[in-house]
Parts: sequence; structure tokens; C-alpha cells
Amino acid sequence: MGRVLPASLSESQFERALGQLAGEIGAAHVITDPAKLREWRDPFAFASWDAFEASAVLQPKSVEEIQAILRIANEHKIPLWTSSQGRNNGYGGAAPRVKGGVILNLRRMNRVLEVNEECAYAVVEPGVSFFDLYEAIKKEGAKLWMSVPDLGWGSVIGNTLDHGLGYTTTGNHPDSQCGMEVVLASGDVLRTGMGAMGDSKAWHVYKRGLGPSADGLFMQSNFGIVTKMGVWLSPQPERYSPCWLTTRNESDLAKIVDTVRPLLLERVIQNHPMILNAVCAASALSSRKDWHTGESALPEAAIDKIASQPGLGRWVSRFAFYGRDKLVEQQIAQAREAFARIAGAELTVSDFDGANLPAKLENPNEQVQAGIPSIDFNQMTKWYGGEEGGHIGFSPAAPLTGAHARKVRDLVSAGLAKFGLDYSAAIICQPRCFLHICLVVFDTKDEAQTKRAYDASKALVVEAAKHGYGEYRAHLDFMDLALEQYDFNNHALRRFNERIKDALDPNGILSPGKQGIWPKGMRPS
Amino acid sequence: MGRVLPASLSESQFERALGQLAGEIGAAHVITDPAKLREWRDPFAFASWDAFEASAVLQPKSVEEIQAILRIANEHKIPLWTSSQGRNNGYGGAAPRVKGGVILNLRRMNRVLEVNEECAYAVVEPGVSFFDLYEAIKKEGAKLWMSVPDLGWGSVIGNTLDHGLGYTTTGNHPDSQCGMEVVLASGDVLRTGMGAMGDSKAWHVYKRGLGPSADGLFMQSNFGIVTKMGVWLSPQPERYSPCWLTTRNESDLAKIVDTVRPLLLERVIQNHPMILNAVCAASALSSRKDWHTGESALPEAAIDKIASQPGLGRWVSRFAFYGRDKLVEQQIAQAREAFARIAGAELTVSDFDGANLPAKLENPNEQVQAGIPSIDFNQMTKWYGGEEGGHIGFSPAAPLTGAHARKVRDLVSAGLAKFGLDYSAAIICQPRCFLHICLVVFDTKDEAQTKRAYDASKALVVEAAKHGYGEYRAHLDFMDLALEQYDFNNHALRRFNERIKDALDPNGILSPGKQGIWPKGMRPS
Repeated sequence: MGRVLPASLSESQFERALGQLAGEIGAAHVITDPAKLREWRDPFAFASWDAFEASAVLQPKSVEEIQAILRIANEHKIPLWTSSQGRNNGYGGAAPRVKGGVILNLRRMNRVLEVNEECAYAVVEPGVSFFDLYEAIKKEGAKLWMSVPDLGWGSVIGNTLDHGLGYTTTGNHPDSQCGMEVVLASGDVLRTGMGAMGDSKAWHVYKRGLGPSADGLFMQSNFGIVTKMGVWLSPQPERYSPCWLTTRNESDLAKIVDTVRPLLLERVIQNHPMILNAVCAASALSSRKDWHTGESALPEAAIDKIASQPGLGRWVSRFAFYGRDKLVEQQIAQAREAFARIAGAELTVSDFDGANLPAKLENPNEQVQAGIPSIDFNQMTKWYGGEEGGHIGFSPAAPLTGAHARKVRDLVSAGLAKFGLDYSAAIICQPRCFLHICLVVFDTKDEAQTKRAYDASKALVVEAAKHGYGEYRAHLDFMDLALEQYDFNNHALRRFNERIKDALDPNGILSPGKQGIWPKGMRPS
Repeated sequence: MGRVLPASLSESQFERALGQLAGEIGAAHVITDPAKLREWRDPFAFASWDAFEASAVLQPKSVEEIQAILRIANEHKIPLWTSSQGRNNGYGGAAPRVKGGVILNLRRMNRVLEVNEECAYAVVEPGVSFFDLYEAIKKEGAKLWMSVPDLGWGSVIGNTLDHGLGYTTTGNHPDSQCGMEVVLASGDVLRTGMGAMGDSKAWHVYKRGLGPSADGLFMQSNFGIVTKMGVWLSPQPERYSPCWLTTRNESDLAKIVDTVRPLLLERVIQNHPMILNAVCAASALSSRKDWHTGESALPEAAIDKIASQPGLGRWVSRFAFYGRDKLVEQQIAQAREAFARIAGAELTVSDFDGANLPAKLENPNEQVQAGIPSIDFNQMTKWYGGEEGGHIGFSPAAPLTGAHARKVRDLVSAGLAKFGLDYSAAIICQPRCFLHICLVVFDTKDEAQTKRAYDASKALVVEAAKHGYGEYRAHLDFMDLALEQYDFNNHALRRFNERIKDALDPNGILSPGKQGIWPKGMRPS
């Protein structure tokens, strides 16, 4: 296999560009060694799957270095694929959408610029991981909690921009974002919201500014490179009470959803409850072979065997309470009363003193809901065995009602069974909707199964859309397909985004193809 | 005074365009009669202040009629100034920024398209006022509460797009918006978020979609015309407990702010508390002459006289609790304990059964915090006497700390005193910031005082910006000046917005000058 190059450049042109880039950011931060580039592939793609191979990785240290890279990329029409950490493995990792694309990775821009205890926020650069932010808060001695997604190795900014979620009271990451600095394709630097005023005092405390708010435009987007961001934190709670609800029957799903909705709408529960099916819950603690050895999708008997284990069930749900002791006590009482109406449901509540939380909680569900980063849940990907399990996410959004939950469950489990794959679901609840995160797991050593996982996910994207359920984020391999489903008025929103793209990035250098948005000249006809 | 025309057209050209418009939307909905046009002026501008005179008002009934208007406006380069109700009097009412502009008023598009009790939202057109939405919810018998700003006559969409706020738990109106339909200058219709999928089930329950979120771009903006919007509501609470806190000393402001912040951050208080100074609180119930007759700004002795009245104080604060009885009981206990630490503070709590709330609450502060529309607070503008008082808003955002509150108070009261005007402040608190709404009130019959009010506000815009406090929304008369203060990197955000404007509206027909954003060819040099 020959060297991978950006489509627009000959090898000598590319070499010249790399030389210029090395001159700007240092040769050590321009990666072209094929062995090293392997780390930047879609982590679960087989060696022969080369649609998303990068030609190089650039790791700038500052806004000025990003601006220098942009000058050179504009000159040579080099497609840059921005990633913060680039660890979003279930959606393609750091790999670029376009073969031969150059990865612009921001791991080296890793400063926590401010931790403000009084107004409960931090300001971070894109290379700051959840682990980094956690350490910075501890180091400051600030009595603040943060939110983390299930795996803590990702970038706070990267996760937020991809509409990621966590599980404390600031767990809606896009909602808890406040104030960005963005470098446009032209190299121009803007600040959003109140930050548009040079010496603003309110950049990270008030979400909007005077005039239109651009923040949403830079999420799941290729319109700019976010280089600073405010992230809201929460006060260390007096009491932290994570809960675990087990239910016995497959049909309990609708009841859980219809019980959790009023608790969320009335703000009794103030975090994101997660409802896991038996397979998903078991995959955090065990492997498939512990339950079943057959090839096709897990039979009902095996699922029942899992569900009958202590602490498990056909569905298990986790949520948590945070705050002043007496308020939490009342919130728990309200939740207890509500869930007691589901026959066979059992609610277990743990209690922690927020001021004296252990650094490591034994139960990863309790750890993640305390906003403490870990990678314990990576175990879930190893369901089919092997050292390195794979997973891709299929994740539609739907209204938070029992009827919709049942319908999406039926649709997804049937869709996976067709491909002989197990149905593993983590349903994240917001007050009015749920995101049905389906972990399509597979054995990375089994190419046929890996391919089935990708194929099943793509088939589900189309099938779910027929019923009005759209993906909330999409894997590299089917970003175009996922966006294709957003078809109102002849894809009016895509056409709108294309106009913005052309106005901001006429050379189409920033992340072409990201979430299905292509610059002029690269649009599929 | 001759007839006012759009700058780009001769009288005969304009007549021809009006004829085309009448053909599309009906002559009855094209207003050109000078007497009728007077209702559409800046309501507090004197007759001789003609900078914002409209040439006509158009009132379409549907998206199709808006599209027809846009075709004609593009053909003739007619500037259209969109308003929903156009009742935002403190910021210029319905008047267009550009003299001779045509008002595109959407009052006739007044359907409540859906009230969804299960997921607690409604879908409205721009002509739906808060009164209309309240009636629609009642008519449906839905057990839902809404949020209203202090005056209920405005449009739900218009208020939200201007970053308006209310006082129930969904009182952050831009945050409680979910899913828009927007007509672009080209006439193209797009739907944001999940609505970009033709038959989406999640348009009004999940805020984002796949790819960038455009919603923020259509707020305080001239990039499109919002024709439908989802608005989140809250479940009828078991108990509703509005509170009234009185404090004795001017210096208590910082203590109130530093007490309210942790209560908000810890979600003990879940609405927007408002802190009013003595003058602002008194203006809801009385006139200036009841306290003082001198011309210059109210002396300390008169303010103390107001503050000594039962139920008043140097500062009074209102906030409210909503929800299950036992939770509200605990929340009140927490608030009582916290405010008891301010010497002389008195907290009064009312209690209502949420299921049996009177249609009209005697206390307008309790009424507005229940989300019941009224125009009772319009009394406040009559402070200086006369049937029709005037006010303009000066409204900077700042971090929610006592030190910032004191600083903004000093800055604004001194700035107004210079112009002989009373300092009337309503400070709206969010968990991390406050909006200092200064009601600059004046007697509309007194041209000199009216002019001083405008001049004082403009001086304050500049002075506040020197200290890092920016306006969260701006009056027609100083939109440019307010945006001028947002100067980071040579006004990078304004230049960004201008690029978007040119890409979306090349003829510059949609609300030129709105919040300081001008189309190509109309930009001040």
C-alpha cells in the first residue's frame, strides 16, 4: 500500500507543505510515520478498511500555531480534520472523514485557564481531558463537582461539541457550555456571547451576548476550531445519593419511562437517569461467554439468566441525588413512592458525604454519577471477548414516553437480531426526551462480525428515520447517511449549513464531511 | 412633513410594490394610512423624532404569504422590519431601525398549534401572545404552567428571540425554546434541530439535531423569520410558594446577592429571583409625587421614606418555589435559614395549591411568578405622572456576586443622577449572573426629560462597557452603540455576523440594523 496523500496534492507538494508546517509548529509535532499514524485510525476498522486513513497529524500548541497551520492549509487546499483528544472511539476515533486528510489534533493545548469557585465554572483548552479538569479542580481545592461521560479520557471541549452528556446536575454538556473562543478557517479569532466584549466580566456566566448566538453553530460542526470554552460546574453537594433500580420484566421499560418523566419534569430527579437493559448492565461486569456461547443474538433464556442475578434485572436504572441533606431525603422519598408502583421493582440507595467522597468509588455507576473520571466502563466493549473490544454507537432521540421507548426498543433489537448481534441499550433520559444509546459491540478480531456491526447500524439509521427518530450524533462511516435522513423541505437545514460553510471556509479546509456537511466542490451529487 | 418612503424607492415604485403586496396578502393587511402608522412608532418618541418612521405595515397570515412578501421585497430591495407583536416598548416598540422601513408584523399568525401535556410543551406561531398561550392551555385543560415576563401582552416567540425572561421554572425563555421553523430571506423554509427530519417525533423535546444548531443564530437577529417554535412548559405544581424578602439597608444588596447565589447554584431556588430597589418596588404601587416633588434625582431621604413603608425596604426581593409540598417545605426552610443571616431581613411566604390557583392573584408579583399574564406592571412606567409613562431599558449582564452588584449599582445610579433621573432597578438573578434591568422611566409629555432618559442610557452603555459589562439587549436608538462596545479582536463577532448576513440575505432586506448588524452596502463606515 502506497503512501496516503491529500487528494489535492502530489507527494512533492505535500512534502513541501509538511516542511512549512514543521517550520511553524516544530517537526516533532508533525506526525507522518506510518506506524505512528496507525494510532489515529478508526480504532475498530480492519487494516484493509482504508477509507479514513490520515496522511499526517499536526499537534499545535497555541492559537497562533493554529493560525499558521490554517494559512498553509488554505494555500495548499489541505483538508484538516480537527479533533481535541480524538478518543470518541464509538464514532470513529480521531480518523478523518476524507482519505488523506490531515488530522489537526489539539491534545497539546491542555491548559485549564481558570477555575472559578464562586460562580462555579472553569475555562479550558481543547486538549483538557476530563481527568485533567478533575485534577485541576482538586489541585485548586475548589469545592466544585464536574460532569463526566462514561469514559473520562475524552476532551471536555470535544465531548461538549459533539453534544455529549454526563450524569451530575451539569451533565447536559452543550447546555453547560458558556462562552467560546473560535478560530475560523481564515485564521480570524472570535469570541462568542459576552466574550465579544474585549474585557467582558460575564463571558462565562451569561450564555448569550448582544445579537445572534453563534455557539450552537460550532457544535458537531466544521465551521471553526474551538480553542477555549467555559464549562459550568456545580457546588460540592452536602449529600450525594446514587440510586440503582432493578425491575423484573421486559415490559417494565415503559413503566420506568412513564415514572421517571414526571420526576424529571418536576425536578425531583435533577441528573440524567440511565436505563440499561440486562445485556448492557451485565457487560460492565462480565463477558458474553459467562452467559451463552451460541453465535446468533442472545436468546431470551440467557437474558433471563442475566436478569435473575442479584443486582440485575431485565432493566436496571441508575440516577442520583445531589444537594442539601434534607432536600435529598425528600427527593429520595418521592422517588421511592413513585417506583414502588412498578411491581417487583427494587430501589437501592447509597449515601455519601459530598465533602468526604472517596477518590475511587467501587461501583463505577456511582463513580461516574459523582463526576469522577474513569475508564472502567471500557469493559463493556469486551462483551464478545478479546483484549480490545469494539463498539459503535447507534443513538436516536425520541420523546420520553413509555410508548416511544417500547417502539425504539423493538425496532433496534429486531434490527440487530437480523445481523445476529446482541441488543445492548443505555437509554439516557432528559425531562422530555431520551437518547437511546445502542452500544453495537463486536469482537475486533472477527472481521465478519465487525462488518455486520457497521452494516446493522447503517440499516438502523434508515429504519429509525422511517419512524421519525433521528441520530443525535453519527459515526464517521455513516455521517452522510444519517444526515440524509434529515430531509425536511429538500434538506433545507443541510442546504443552509452549506451556505454558511461556503461563506466561512471557501477553500473547504476545515473537516470536510463532518456530520455530512461538505464544502463546495466536494458535495456528493 | 412629506410621506416616508423606503430609501431605495421612488413614490411610484413604492406604490407599485404596495399594489403587488396587496395582491398577495389583501389590501386590508397593508397599512399605509399615516394615522394608523402612528401606532407603530417608538411609543415614547416625540412626534418630531422621525428617525424610525415606517412607510407601511404588512400583516401576513401564513408562511406562504411571508414568502410572497419576500419575493416582492427582494425584487424592489425593500427593507422589512420583522416584529411578532411589536410591544417591546422599552426597546423601541415595533418601529423599524431604518427610516421608511416596512414593518412585517406577524400578529395575525396567532395559532397555538399544539399543547402537549405529557411532555410539557406547546408549539406556537409568532402572533401568539402570552395571554393567548395561557388561554390555550386553560382551554385544553392541560395541567401545565407557562412562564411570562412582567408584561403579558408580548409575543411568546418575540420575547424569546429577544432573550426575554420570565419567572417560573421555565423562565429562561431562550433556554426553554425547542425547535424552530424559519423562513430565510430567499423564502426557503428550514426547521431546526430534530425538525430537520420531515416526520420527526423529537422536534420539540430534544434541543439539538445532527450537525450544527442554528437556533441561537435566529435570536436577536436579522437572519430569518421564525414562524413556529416549541416552548417548554412545566407541570402544574402541587404547591406554589411565592416569597417576598425585605431588607433595610442600601448595603444589603451585596449580601442578598451573595446569599441567593448558592441557593441558585444548589437548585434550592429554581426560578429567577428579582431584586428591586426601593424606587422600582414603589413604582408598581405609587407615583413619584407621593414621595417627592423636586426635579433632580430622588434624594436619600425620600428613598428612605419609601423604604420604611410596610412591605418595602431599601431592597426587596421576590422569588418562588414550585413543586411537591414536602420539597417546597424544605426549600423554604433552607431559604429562611440563609436570609436570616442578613440583619433586619424579613421573609414573607405565601402558599397556594397549584391545582386551585385563583385566576387573578391580588399581588402582581405573585401573579407573574405563577406564569399568569397581566399588564399590571405597566403602572411602573407612570412614575413621573401622566396617563402614559415611558421607559427605556438599560440592561447589562454581570457575574452574580455582591461585589459586581454593588459596582453596577454605583455606576448606574451615578450615571442617571448626572441627568437628574431616578435610579429604578430590577436585578434578575440566574445561578451565575444577573441582568441589571434599569428602568429608565420618564414623563412622555416632558420632551426634555424624555431626551435626557435616552441620553443617559446611551452614556451608560459606554460607561458600563469600560468596566466590562455589556448590554444583553439594546434599544432601537442605540443598537449600534451597544454593539460597538463588543470590540474583541476588531469586532470579530460583528464581522462574523456580517459574513453570515451577506450569505443569507444578499439584498439586505431582513431587518437591516437589527442589534447593530447591517447588510453589505448599509454598513456605517
